[in-house]
Amino acid sequence: MIALHLIGIGTGNPDHLTGEAVGALNAADLILVPRKENAGDLADLRHAICAAVLARPVPIAEFDMPVRAGEGDYVQAVQDWHDAIATAWRAAIAAHLPGGGSVALLVWGDPSLYDSTLRIAARLPDISVRVVPGITSIQALTAAHAIPLNALAGAVTITTGRLLRRQGWPDGADTLVVMLDGGCAFETLDPVGLAIWWGAYLGMPQQALDHGPLAEAGPRIAARRAALRARHGWIMDVTLLRKESR
Amino acid sequence: MIALHLIGIGTGNPDHLTGEAVGALNAADLILVPRKENAGDLADLRHAICAAVLARPVPIAEFDMPVRAGEGDYVQAVQDWHDAIATAWRAAIAAHLPGGGSVALLVWGDPSLYDSTLRIAARLPDISVRVVPGITSIQALTAAHAIPLNALAGAVTITTGRLLRRQGWPDGADTLVVMLDGGCAFETLDPVGLAIWWGAYLGMPQQALDHGPLAEAGPRIAARRAALRARHGWIMDVTLLRKESR
Repeated sequence: MIALHLIGIGTGNPDHLTGEAVGALNAADLILVPRKENAGDLADLRHAICAAVLARPVPIAEFDMPVRAGEGDYVQAVQDWHDAIATAWRAAIAAHLPGGGSVALLVWGDPSLYDSTLRIAARLPDISVRVVPGITSIQALTAAHAIPLNALAGAVTITTGRLLRRQGWPDGADTLVVMLDGGCAFETLDPVGLAIWWGAYLGMPQQALDHGPLAEAGPRIAARRAALRARHGWIMDVTLLRKESR
Repeated sequence: MIALHLIGIGTGNPDHLTGEAVGALNAADLILVPRKENAGDLADLRHAICAAVLARPVPIAEFDMPVRAGEGDYVQAVQDWHDAIATAWRAAIAAHLPGGGSVALLVWGDPSLYDSTLRIAARLPDISVRVVPGITSIQALTAAHAIPLNALAGAVTITTGRLLRRQGWPDGADTLVVMLDGGCAFETLDPVGLAIWWGAYLGMPQQALDHGPLAEAGPRIAARRAALRARHGWIMDVTLLRKESR
């Protein structure tokens, strides 16, 4: 019997972990850490978080993350990729925990938000799944700027860079969070009347923040983002946009 | 000099607190706890969380929460209420920490999401503010159900019961989270093609969960919600609705 614990770890600061997350990591029989090509020090960050919070020696096994096909239908490519990751999990668990037990996966942010782990776990119906929530990059962003996410009594839309580029500003939205943005999707918007709050490497020593009217802050953020990405070899960032008329 | 720390505490389970939150509470010179009429055991829950995580005796001061005017313009009533709360904070801090220092406020969920604390703090420009993010009820809901928040590559809209009743299903949304809902705003929707995931008292011993097609699960949830509210004297819950066609 395998019990899989998907543990939200926040955005890279061990202090983001909840008591529940620390408890679940310490109770695991095996911690699985994905090793991705070209992901810079993200696997190392997971090891650093384990080292910071483990009070006993829990075995940690790395597995090579399959690579997603870059061509063809996007959704189909993601489905095939998730199939391949599920197969890699099963192989790693069989190799390192042949008698079964409790397996922990450290999930960036929260397992519910723009993360594949739950969908991959659903491909393994014989494995039970428990989710431990974590701080999302949205919360790390609003906390770093000390701003509310929603306008007073207003709604919030969370979208992706891909959707924003394709569909533009969503009808009726006054606060928009853009995630999974490989670039600067805000550059496709008319900046008039919009304000931006941006953060990268949130909660980490290299944290970068900026905000202002989109017309002024947007080009500044785009240049800084490119420079940071070149310097660190990777970047994870999140953007909040709000209509200033509110 | 006063430094105000707004500390997200999650939804009532001390295990929701992050290491950062526990550290900030233990570093405070004073913890302010609001005492509301008719709020059942919510102030007691804040005391229980402090008791669970404080490693040293930090002074805790209660203050009476002003009551919001129930009539007239909603936004104006909220503004007046926030002014009154800021005045109450200042009086409590002056009484209990006349020489200044670090003041902590325990904020349900995360200080960024449908919470007034940041807007109230903005009324005290001589006080510096730091935010410690916490687990929101949205994350507690999706974790309890072990479901993703977003459909694959899809957007998410977070709204309030008030907005949903007034405006209906937002254009273009396929996943909708309803917060601050004093009742069952989902009853105002055509249930065809919608699924619901609901949770109350998330993370607490009395946690209640249900989900299913809205046409079947909606009436069941409405009846259970009323019964739970009558039994406990209060209820805090959150609802996720999703178009089933995705």
